[in-house]
Parts: sequence; C-alpha cells; structure tokens
Amino acid sequence: MFSIKLKGRRLYYLDQTKLPFEEVYYECKGIKDGLHALNNLKIRGAPLIGVFSAYCVYIEVKKAKNKEEFFSLFSSTLHKLRNSRPTAFNLFKALTKLESVVNQNKNSNLRELKDILWQEICSIHREDIELCRKMSEFGAELIRGKEGVLTHCNTGALATTGIGTALGVIITAYRRYKNINIYVDETRPLLQGSRLTCWELEKSKVPYKLICDNMAGYLMSQGRVNKVFVGADRITLRGDVANKIGTYTLAVLAKYHSVPFYVVAPSTTFDLSIKDKQDVPIEERKPEEVKKVLNKLWIAPYNAEVYNPAFDITPNHLITGIITEKGIIMPPFYQNIRRVIKYE
Amino acid sequence: MFSIKLKGRRLYYLDQTKLPFEEVYYECKGIKDGLHALNNLKIRGAPLIGVFSAYCVYIEVKKAKNKEEFFSLFSSTLHKLRNSRPTAFNLFKALTKLESVVNQNKNSNLRELKDILWQEICSIHREDIELCRKMSEFGAELIRGKEGVLTHCNTGALATTGIGTALGVIITAYRRYKNINIYVDETRPLLQGSRLTCWELEKSKVPYKLICDNMAGYLMSQGRVNKVFVGADRITLRGDVANKIGTYTLAVLAKYHSVPFYVVAPSTTFDLSIKDKQDVPIEERKPEEVKKVLNKLWIAPYNAEVYNPAFDITPNHLITGIITEKGIIMPPFYQNIRRVIKYE
Repeated sequence: MFSIKLKGRRLYYLDQTKLPFEEVYYECKGIKDGLHALNNLKIRGAPLIGVFSAYCVYIEVKKAKNKEEFFSLFSSTLHKLRNSRPTAFNLFKALTKLESVVNQNKNSNLRELKDILWQEICSIHREDIELCRKMSEFGAELIRGKEGVLTHCNTGALATTGIGTALGVIITAYRRYKNINIYVDETRPLLQGSRLTCWELEKSKVPYKLICDNMAGYLMSQGRVNKVFVGADRITLRGDVANKIGTYTLAVLAKYHSVPFYVVAPSTTFDLSIKDKQDVPIEERKPEEVKKVLNKLWIAPYNAEVYNPAFDITPNHLITGIITEKGIIMPPFYQNIRRVIKYE
Repeated sequence: MFSIKLKGRRLYYLDQTKLPFEEVYYECKGIKDGLHALNNLKIRGAPLIGVFSAYCVYIEVKKAKNKEEFFSLFSSTLHKLRNSRPTAFNLFKALTKLESVVNQNKNSNLRELKDILWQEICSIHREDIELCRKMSEFGAELIRGKEGVLTHCNTGALATTGIGTALGVIITAYRRYKNINIYVDETRPLLQGSRLTCWELEKSKVPYKLICDNMAGYLMSQGRVNKVFVGADRITLRGDVANKIGTYTLAVLAKYHSVPFYVVAPSTTFDLSIKDKQDVPIEERKPEEVKKVLNKLWIAPYNAEVYNPAFDITPNHLITGIITEKGIIMPPFYQNIRRVIKYE
C-alpha cells in the first residue's frame, strides 16, 4: 500500500479519488500534473502533500537545460505549490527546506544542483517514513487493549509515505493487543474515512466499524469510545490544531465525555510563527463537494447554498496530548511545544 | 407541498426518497403499500408516521365485507404497523386512539364502524395540522431576528401534515423577521436535511445554508448559531428526547457553546410510560444506508462493518425547552411535563 511510488527518478501516485474501488497509479510528469493531483485531492494528507510536492519540484526542474532555467523553474514551481493547499503546513516546511538547500548550493553546476535537490527530497521522504514509525510507537504506548478508539478522516499510509500518523498509532496498537474496537468517522464531505481509512484497514486486515460523523456523540455517551486519535494539518505555537473539518466537533464531544483526545503529527506540522489560532488560513472549498457526493450523486437541490470549510481549529485546551516523533507533548503546550520542537 | 393527499377516501403519499429531484405521488392501496412506504422511509417524520398509519388502517379495513373480517383486519393491521418503526411514538399514540374508538363502538354495524373510524382518522389529521400551527407560533416567539439558527433532519411539512415542528418554527420566524440565517444539517446517513429540508425551504422561498453534520461545532465556535431547533420521535416522562441520530451530538455542542437547544414536538410525542431513557427502543437500520448513499453510490468497501443507529437520546439536562402546542415546557421537566401533558 503506497501513496506514491518511484521508478528511478520518475514519480507515480495512487489516485485516491478512485479508492476504495479502483487502485490506479498515474505518473506525475510535471508541475501541471502535480497541481491537478493536489487540487483535486488525488493526493491529500498533510505529510504526503509535503513529500509529494517536494518530488513535484524535482520533476519540473529536471527539465531545465541551463542554470538560469533551473532557478526560474524552481522559483515558479515553488510559487505554484505554495498556492495549492493553504492549510497543510508540511507543504510549506518541505518547500522551504528545498529553497534553503538550493540557495546553499547555488554555485554548483546544473547537474550537481539537480542531484543535490534529488538527494534532499529523498531525505525528506525517508524522514517522513521514520517520523511515522516513531509516532506510531509512542502513540501505541497509550493504548492498553480492551479499548474503543475513534478516528477521523484518513491519517494512515495514504496520508503519509509511512504507516501514518493517528491511524499508524491505531494499527500499531491493534497489532500488539488485538482486542481494540476501532471506530472510523466517514468524514463528510469527501469521505476520507469511509473510502480511505476503511480501505487501509481492510488491506491491513484490521477490523473496524464505520460510523457517520454525527454518531460519534452517541457512541461516546454509551461509553464505547475510550480515546480519540486524529491527525493535524497545522499546529500553532500554543498547540491549537487545524485539521479536517469535524475535528473540533469531536474534540468538544470528547471533552464533554471525559474521553482523552490525542493529536498525532510530526514536528514538521508545527508552524511556530503562528501565535493566534485565528491566523491559520482555513481553506473553503466548492459547494459541489457537499451537494454532489464524490462528484457523482446529487443529494441536495442544485442551487442549494452551502458553507464548506475544509478544516477547523481545535483550541489547545481540548487536547490531551500531541504525539510527535520526539515524544508526547503534554500541556501546558505553550511552554512544552517550544521546548520540544525548537525554532529552526 | 403535501406529504399526503386525499381524494375522497383514497390516500396518496409523496415518495420522499425521490426528493428533491422528483415529486411523485403514489396511491396507498392497503397495508402492504403502507408498510412498504414506512419501512423504506418514503414516508417518515414522527407526526406524519402517526397520521399516515392511521389512514393505512382505514384503507385496509374498508376491504372488510363483514364485522368479523373488520375486527380481524383491524387487529392484524395494527399489529403490523406497530412493528414497522419502533421509535416514533406518534404511531403508537394514533393506533391506540383508533383502537379505543373501535372498541367503544364495537356494537355498531359494519358501515357505521368504517365511518366512525374514518371520522376519527380525519380528526387526528386535522389535529396534527393545528398542533403544528400552534407550536410554530409559540416557538417563533423565541426568535427575535438577526439570529443564526441551526436545525437537524427534516421537521417541516414533509415530516407532518401541517407546517412542521422545528422547521415550522423557523419558517414562521423567518416570515416575521427575514434577517435570520438558517443552517441546515445534511443529516447523514439518509440526508433528510439536504434532500428534504432544503427542498422545503426552496419551495417556501426561505434562504438557508446547507452544512455537513460535522461542521456544526465549528459554526458554533464562530458564534454563527444562536439557537438550535430539532424535532422529536419520542419524549419520556423526564424530558429525555429520542430523535434522529446526530441530535445528541448537536445538544452537547450547544451546551458547550451556551447555545439554547429547543425541541419542538406535539404532546402526542410524549410517552409518559417511559421513565428511564434506556427503555426507549432505538431502531438500528441496515449497514447499506451508510455504505451506499441513497442506495445508489457506494462510498465504502462493500464488506465494511457499520454501526447504524437511526436515533439517539438526548438527556433532559441538555435541553433548554420543549415547545409543544400547549406552550413551552421549561425545566424542571419531570414536574412540568406531568403538569402540561397529563396522563390520558
């Protein structure tokens, strides 16, 4: 189960909009393909967006025939990618890393520049796999078996290039203890839960129960949920978390029912430049995502007005802990995030 | 906009599963048709289920050629209807009323019996219209304009035979003040919000915004929702409310954000025999409702396991007030419900 595949220096991606029914890989031949995949959520999930975008940069700039063209393509490609998905911070983090490496080596020749860029991207990719592994290990420690856990959206192998963030924790814990009841929010409007998380769990032979998002409260009131694990698209200096729409609703429900609520995200998701959660850009997407399920089935009057924010922000006081590759950050987040993540 | 229509003593119903795209009426020619409509949610909404079922009884027993056949058909039809939708109390209330009228007149001749039954059903029908009007008037008093209101499922003309319960309140208030922002939960899995409530509001030329259920918390955190209005399928002696799945989640969110949460339901929805909310039967429906949207579009692996409760229970302490045709019942509900509703 791979969200992206490499053949030599060629990049192939799994079209996630076709899941769970078709497993189709396409080659990304340049930034146009890359933006198409990103904007149409064929590729999604904050950590994956970061790695995929980095590869897109290489795929585009390798076309350069001289250094001038290289720098020009590099800069325009970065610009386009930064305007693709505003909320996921891993995207910006990865691109800034590439920018800094290219700047440091601007006197190298064209071939060297391309190689250095490629090596840096491979290292970002390897790092992502390793971050996932570490987070999963740390997070799985929190689960002791005979528990009910609930997750939202997709945060597994399809959202990263490794085992995943929140789903990585859950799968790792399941492999240890087996007797864990896993509940999956379908995650409207784009159904990443029912389409992607269920598909991953089937592939991994991990049993689960799918629910509609609005059933989570009732489940908790019955005592069926002992812990919630979600991913993150961007985490502020104070530990406020931007994540898939519906995360905030879950966090309030968890607080009300005294259910621990954990966010699982690598340090690359932290945007320490943001102090006020209101400053996190929240992407609003088109109404058809709500009115026409998976762009196939109309479920509302054609001209219905819709409000469709793709993300929401969960304030730090609703969060029990943030599981990173460096360990689990507990409150007070303002102090502890600065201690663990550090400015770079 | 009529959920059911009569031509003489013939009964036609609007097939709500075809909305919002097709407006098709079918004749209900007997209990078989009636059960088909009820079980497949072609007819739904607790008050409408009550009235429609009462008419179904007549449609079936009018076939009787002698009194013996009448009583036999009457009793078997009641039995079948009582086993159709377990949660909506209005169904049981209406059938018990018919049973008592038939019992009181068991010495009348066949033709008289049929006429008495018909008159009683017409009176239940007229009463439902009147209850809706009164609830809408009482409830609309709570809205002063320049407010954001949120509603769940469908509780309008399609859920009753009048202007509706919760949606009746909202439409009545909108007609008075105009400047009300109406948010409609799509209401997974069967999308009564996006399909039916949006359709009704379009028909009534009332503007609204459709959201996915999981966006309600984020809306509230932004201060966009000042009041929540929902309907009810059954209300216990203590004021605990069984209603469409997702109602409880909304009630918890409303409590957390200090947003008043109102239930709108006629006195026929109160089941004073139930003291403990755990005793309300909660209908679980088939997994396909979640996995295959509107029985048309698969959105999860075919063999995904699903938990699909059709209703949940909101405990009284999350409810600000219950709007009935007799006025608004406020806490303490245990005392006030007994005072207002009275045993019959």
